[in-house]
Amino acid sequence: MSSPRLNVSLDRLRRDLEHLATIGRTPSGGTSRTSFSSADQQVREWLEHECAENGLTTETDGIGNVVIRLGDTSNVADADAAPVRTGSHLDTVPEGGNYDGILGALAGLEVMRIIAEQRPQLARPVEAVVFADEEGNYHHLLGSTAMVANYEWEDLKEFRGRDGDLLIDALGQMDWEPADATRTALTEGALHSFVELHIEQGPTLEAAGTDIGVVTGIVGLGGGQAEFRGRSDHAGTTPMDLRLDPVPAAGAFIARLPGIARETSSTAVVTCGLIDVEPGGTNVVPNLARIHLDFRDPDPDVLVALEQRLQSAIEEAGREHGIEATYVRESITQPVPLDESIRERISRSASARGLSAEPIPSGAGHDSQNMARLAPTAMIFIPSTGGSHNPRENAEWDAIENGANVLLDTLLDLASD
Amino acid sequence: MSSPRLNVSLDRLRRDLEHLATIGRTPSGGTSRTSFSSADQQVREWLEHECAENGLTTETDGIGNVVIRLGDTSNVADADAAPVRTGSHLDTVPEGGNYDGILGALAGLEVMRIIAEQRPQLARPVEAVVFADEEGNYHHLLGSTAMVANYEWEDLKEFRGRDGDLLIDALGQMDWEPADATRTALTEGALHSFVELHIEQGPTLEAAGTDIGVVTGIVGLGGGQAEFRGRSDHAGTTPMDLRLDPVPAAGAFIARLPGIARETSSTAVVTCGLIDVEPGGTNVVPNLARIHLDFRDPDPDVLVALEQRLQSAIEEAGREHGIEATYVRESITQPVPLDESIRERISRSASARGLSAEPIPSGAGHDSQNMARLAPTAMIFIPSTGGSHNPRENAEWDAIENGANVLLDTLLDLASD
Repeated sequence: MSSPRLNVSLDRLRRDLEHLATIGRTPSGGTSRTSFSSADQQVREWLEHECAENGLTTETDGIGNVVIRLGDTSNVADADAAPVRTGSHLDTVPEGGNYDGILGALAGLEVMRIIAEQRPQLARPVEAVVFADEEGNYHHLLGSTAMVANYEWEDLKEFRGRDGDLLIDALGQMDWEPADATRTALTEGALHSFVELHIEQGPTLEAAGTDIGVVTGIVGLGGGQAEFRGRSDHAGTTPMDLRLDPVPAAGAFIARLPGIARETSSTAVVTCGLIDVEPGGTNVVPNLARIHLDFRDPDPDVLVALEQRLQSAIEEAGREHGIEATYVRESITQPVPLDESIRERISRSASARGLSAEPIPSGAGHDSQNMARLAPTAMIFIPSTGGSHNPRENAEWDAIENGANVLLDTLLDLASD
Repeated sequence: MSSPRLNVSLDRLRRDLEHLATIGRTPSGGTSRTSFSSADQQVREWLEHECAENGLTTETDGIGNVVIRLGDTSNVADADAAPVRTGSHLDTVPEGGNYDGILGALAGLEVMRIIAEQRPQLARPVEAVVFADEEGNYHHLLGSTAMVANYEWEDLKEFRGRDGDLLIDALGQMDWEPADATRTALTEGALHSFVELHIEQGPTLEAAGTDIGVVTGIVGLGGGQAEFRGRSDHAGTTPMDLRLDPVPAAGAFIARLPGIARETSSTAVVTCGLIDVEPGGTNVVPNLARIHLDFRDPDPDVLVALEQRLQSAIEEAGREHGIEATYVRESITQPVPLDESIRERISRSASARGLSAEPIPSGAGHDSQNMARLAPTAMIFIPSTGGSHNPRENAEWDAIENGANVLLDTLLDLASD
């Protein structure tokens, strides 16, 4: 560490987290604050006011990403150098929780307040960003994707929200010029590095009693469907031997999903969270069973092998039951390894603060996977319970303080080089 | 046969079938004519007019069942004797076909026209009935159930249609007094016998090249759900070994359904036509997989054995996957054997007309299962293609003529005793 150790204010961070939990609050104690909703707009106004009060400036790009900077950069040796950035998002899924994204975005704000107050000597600027629509009401990782490459207007005008509304209409009601939404990409070398703090959203750190997760990479994600096709018939009048029922074949396939994941790698996960049976009457032999698949692994080769095994198992179940069975790939997002040098800095900070730290993959997607295309990027996880994307997601206050302090250390460390 | 052989007029029956296919017609060529809809009301008016034109009277009871009688009963030795009845229904499911129910109801009308015209000497009256709401927009087999036992007003006022509307509101818009809907049951001995003509709705007669199906009984029908309960988690952040995913257990169970049916009896059928996965996101490990089950067999003991095997298989799949698994029975409708003596009369008629006839169970429910509680009852099936409850259901004109003539023979035979 080239600077004396600073600390975040947990009181202030807690106050902000508790305040944001009231904006878009649901009866179940969660938060519904999708991007560009009135709740989101309210949070944007709060953020601007909070920054102005603390000597920070905000700049919003055409897609709604907000960048927070120091108003007075006299403590920065080269104020025009590529900045170190942190950030996350303040939007939630419908009936979401109070920590996913919000922790990282508010910790970013707190880090900026500390720097503005304490004015440590830095070689380059530190900035914080709040990404637009990470949760993809209109498009998954909308804001951070727009920082990597400009959207074409033709694509942008097709994006619709869960309620069927157009993104461009939602943008039109915000404070900025919607046409700027196609002029958001950063130039090469615009960022020095990026670090995001996030709750784990899984049970691993909590179960192991680990304070800090040093994220090794963001898993690759495959999405697709297994389609089993038969023939619709009357459930009462069609003898078993005259049926072409796709459901038993689909059943044989989904019974094998845990085995396929385990055979492929210890980190692979396969999930079927949705099954369509058509036409979908209890007294009708179906003509179609569609199994929605989500499969993930941090290793690109394992992701390929996983998809191949799923496809083989689909075809095998179809053959065994005499049913047409096909795999339809929907999308493959490649795994993103995170920067080893920043991971070492995170581990050093944890160690200096007497915190345990362990490497951990991220099973969920994050804006960091886009930032990794622009600059060396890393993520810090803290233990959380209750998963995420639901009102039960939770993190302890000391875990939050630990995470925010390790984030602060790491950013100051990167900005001091 | 105690009377010289009469024949139905296929031309007239075809004209009626083709006319009714225009009332409630859908773009796909099917019929949407749920009970008490405006299309149903139009058909009721047509029927009254057609009867009046042909020397027939109609009487509608409080639930909407229409009974067609001879205006002039001078050819009936004892006009007050318990009548022989035939009948079926003219309502359809939404997007239904043009034969299910309609054939039997219009063949009943044609038989009445022939008797009114030809005036054969009969010992007792023949009557035809058009049952209300067989397809259960408001309640399965509504009209025929009301003939067996009066509905209580407390039950009746709870019945709602698919669109959420109340049955009593629908009845209130018809021509009769809704209060009469609780005074519909026939007294003991009110009927001599009952015979219903219907399309098979399945592939058996058509595949075997059989002209007439002599229905042995109406299958017993069980409905229930297999519920597999686990814990909802994030599909990316929850390792396979820390999941409690109900879907693979549900898959193992549904893969066994055809085997369970075959092991139990050659006539048993088991169908899963609907699967609920909750909460139902592609990136969420579900907490619940609910398998809707429809299982049928003509033998009451086999129906019991079938339900027991399903329950055991559900529990076994749960145990093997470490998942809470329960069977929830929704309803059991006991099988209804049909009258042997009438079945012999049907076979004799077919034989006398040079038609092949084979015994066949009915896999679907029919108003006849209620009539069997009042009087000796039988059913005649004719070959059909395209299943039923869809616009593709179809029967050939010669099969229709054959069926209607065998119905006519059987009714005259029963009424001559």
